[in-house]
Amino acid sequence: MEWSLTVDKALPRPVRVILRGVGQVFFCGNAVTGLIFLIALFIGGLVAGLAATIGVVTSTITAYLLGFSEDDIDAGLYGFNGTLVGPCLFLFLEYSPQLWLYVILAAILSSVVLAALIRILTPYRIPASTSPFVLTCWMFMVAVYSFDKFTPGPVLPTPEIPSIVAGMGGLSIEAWFTVWTDDTVKMWYTALTKGIAEVMFADNILVGILFLIGIAITSWRGAFMALCGTVVGVVVPVVLGANQNLIEMGLYAFNPVLTMMAIGWVFLKPTKKSAILALLAGILTVVCQAGLANFLAPIGLPTLTFPFVLVMWMFLFAAGMSKYWSEPKI
Amino acid sequence: MEWSLTVDKALPRPVRVILRGVGQVFFCGNAVTGLIFLIALFIGGLVAGLAATIGVVTSTITAYLLGFSEDDIDAGLYGFNGTLVGPCLFLFLEYSPQLWLYVILAAILSSVVLAALIRILTPYRIPASTSPFVLTCWMFMVAVYSFDKFTPGPVLPTPEIPSIVAGMGGLSIEAWFTVWTDDTVKMWYTALTKGIAEVMFADNILVGILFLIGIAITSWRGAFMALCGTVVGVVVPVVLGANQNLIEMGLYAFNPVLTMMAIGWVFLKPTKKSAILALLAGILTVVCQAGLANFLAPIGLPTLTFPFVLVMWMFLFAAGMSKYWSEPKI
Amino acid sequence: MEWSLTVDKALPRPVRVILRGVGQVFFCGNAVTGLIFLIALFIGGLVAGLAATIGVVTSTITAYLLGFSEDDIDAGLYGFNGTLVGPCLFLFLEYSPQLWLYVILAAILSSVVLAALIRILTPYRIPASTSPFVLTCWMFMVAVYSFDKFTPGPVLPTPEIPSIVAGMGGLSIEAWFTVWTDDTVKMWYTALTKGIAEVMFADNILVGILFLIGIAITSWRGAFMALCGTVVGVVVPVVLGANQNLIEMGLYAFNPVLTMMAIGWVFLKPTKKSAILALLAGILTVVCQAGLANFLAPIGLPTLTFPFVLVMWMFLFAAGMSKYWSEPKI
Repeated sequence: MEWSLTVDKALPRPVRVILRGVGQVFFCGNAVTGLIFLIALFIGGLVAGLAATIGVVTSTITAYLLGFSEDDIDAGLYGFNGTLVGPCLFLFLEYSPQLWLYVILAAILSSVVLAALIRILTPYRIPASTSPFVLTCWMFMVAVYSFDKFTPGPVLPTPEIPSIVAGMGGLSIEAWFTVWTDDTVKMWYTALTKGIAEVMFADNILVGILFLIGIAITSWRGAFMALCGTVVGVVVPVVLGANQNLIEMGLYAFNPVLTMMAIGWVFLKPTKKSAILALLAGILTVVCQAGLANFLAPIGLPTLTFPFVLVMWMFLFAAGMSKYWSEPKI
Repeated sequence: MEWSLTVDKALPRPVRVILRGVGQVFFCGNAVTGLIFLIALFIGGLVAGLAATIGVVTSTITAYLLGFSEDDIDAGLYGFNGTLVGPCLFLFLEYSPQLWLYVILAAILSSVVLAALIRILTPYRIPASTSPFVLTCWMFMVAVYSFDKFTPGPVLPTPEIPSIVAGMGGLSIEAWFTVWTDDTVKMWYTALTKGIAEVMFADNILVGILFLIGIAITSWRGAFMALCGTVVGVVVPVVLGANQNLIEMGLYAFNPVLTMMAIGWVFLKPTKKSAILALLAGILTVVCQAGLANFLAPIGLPTLTFPFVLVMWMFLFAAGMSKYWSEPKI
Repeated sequence: MEWSLTVDKALPRPVRVILRGVGQVFFCGNAVTGLIFLIALFIGGLVAGLAATIGVVTSTITAYLLGFSEDDIDAGLYGFNGTLVGPCLFLFLEYSPQLWLYVILAAILSSVVLAALIRILTPYRIPASTSPFVLTCWMFMVAVYSFDKFTPGPVLPTPEIPSIVAGMGGLSIEAWFTVWTDDTVKMWYTALTKGIAEVMFADNILVGILFLIGIAITSWRGAFMALCGTVVGVVVPVVLGANQNLIEMGLYAFNPVLTMMAIGWVFLKPTKKSAILALLAGILTVVCQAGLANFLAPIGLPTLTFPFVLVMWMFLFAAGMSKYWSEPKI
């Protein structure tokens, strides 16, 4: 929306850059959107909000000190990976005072990795997106098994050999699709909103709604794609018979949300064809998420947003070979 | 052979493209060869044949709809990964009606991945080969542990920590090389032909012979390299003391078959030097196969043709640095 | 030092190339340095010295026969991966006569992989460094679980699911930093020197000192960075509470040694800024080492020098995006 861009430009540069960094988590280089996201994060939890703030500030300053492109820094591109690193490590590792230092170190590394990937991917006009955050956090999380000073938290998956686990549990597919009681309505409502909130690790309905509002301020199409993504991330795993709890917590949805926003709004010309392509990519992201989760099971790491990154990379690389999309927007 | 090219060109375009797609599994862009392969697949098993047909049609149509290069589509390049996806998923997952939909989804993805890899690898003049099939099938196979609607079949390796397993079992190296009884002759005959058949998951002597005939129709050198590859894939694991059953089923041979065809016939100038290089690559493929199999053991995935892909990539990238091969054929 | 270059140039070409190949393990294309390294290796153990010799000769001859760049061969670039392959396989696999053949095969492959990576990385002016050695040895080590003719040695990590292991054991952080007894002095002295020696798998104080002298002959700054690297590789894991035995054996230090030499001396302009960047990279290498070790635990492989390679790649790629280092030395 027009007014948000005016506000964005009126802000003092450091504030604008930091807030845009938060906004870029959902591809929104807009300080107003970033502010709404940040408020939502604090509503989700004080520690998560603080960790995100420290992350985004650290990674942005790192980029500045290491002399990376000022344009990229101004767009908030060196902020969003740091934003994610903070809440991620505080969610998956047990709280301790030295964890703040660990987060700072990881946020620094995320900026180095981003610069490296920008250099590799730019000739193809492919974005690094959240891959630096994922790679950095995986390394810092799996490393703690070797360090006395840090301990894996209860949410970090226990390393184990993958095996067939009962998926749907109590509810059947029919229960999701045909029985409309107060319970199922609440179930849908919860899964769909949390699917957006979990992009920043918030298990919270209100946070999801605020994220969606923030996106809509930057772009209606973006918000629409996010909504489609969370629908795909609930419907497809239900149809395939995935674990009920994971679906309800939105843990199958946050990746398709990002995939559909990237393919259907940000990086390709926003046409009807792109919307269909985004839908296909969203569906495949669900399969990729299940596959990657089992792939990582023996070392006990969560997928984070890597299913989105992988599917997006494949589709954007492929789009460059197509007569319909060979001129990507970025 | 000349006549086969004439037949190839006389066919209606859709039929030609589909059959070439099947032929490209062994690098043969020739519809007659493709037809022989397809007949062989149906002889190997009705489901495998149908699955391959659906796979090749789906992946080719996908490429067309997504607007990828018509020249590549016409050459059958968007067909062979789909051809392999079908029988692969039906072999390793338990049969169910919804598996057909899963195969279609995987075949679609294989074309997207192929386009992406073509974009990355073409500047180096390196082929993507069967890597899209491998990556797609790995993802779709390991994902089923999370989905109630699909079940791993009995042939899919159970996820487990690798350990030292007795290799040769009953037979010693001497038994393969010096005692010529009816039994050992049959053993050699079986291992060598199945080594070619297993490229398309057929545990069947006749299928292997038909594949070899199909290749010979396109190129004598190709057929010779395939034969050398299967010999390497039996002799080398026997000498190293690998598992007897795997060797007899041709499961150490199908990768060297492809490696030797790629290096010794398709992608480098076909000289004596290239033949020697192909032999070296074939031997290393056996080690790579054993290594990758153990590497994948904790998540319970088969190597598929990835040992071939890895070794071929290394040798073709390296060939570009050499004064002898710096002008590869492709 | 000047005199060493004179000696280097006076040597007959084959000797010079081979010795430079050994020297390049620590980035020193200097035959005198290489000779000191080789003598040190033989002091460390006869088999290790012989294996390194066979490795460097094999990989250099391979490069020559395959027609790779004569300039690169002359600089010893096709030697150092072979140098490392030999002692590595003899350390981690059980001794048997056929192991010599296995080493030769691996050394051949290491040269092919190096040529492939040079082709991929050179446009970015990024070195392949020891990655061919690591990739080749991983493959050859994990493959032996399938082969009767080779057995994993007692030093190769047993494949297992990672779990939280007690780190520091008996000693506390205070014991390393504040109590100055003969024991702690010896502990520091041992850890620091072995940290350099372990780059070539030598668990030996004298070897570490000789390596340092060899480096100093080529460059004072190089030796200083190596020393800083080993200090980082002891202090950081102590502070993080890593396993006491691993620290004392220098097993957390050999990677930061290489990282700090690469970033602080070899590949970037040798300024104060580069030294600070090298320190940051060295610290992150310790985290990366712990992470990669746990990542590889389920298949039972050691990290070798891959933490160094990964961190160096990230920092050098990133340096190309920076206004301070966008003109790297190589």
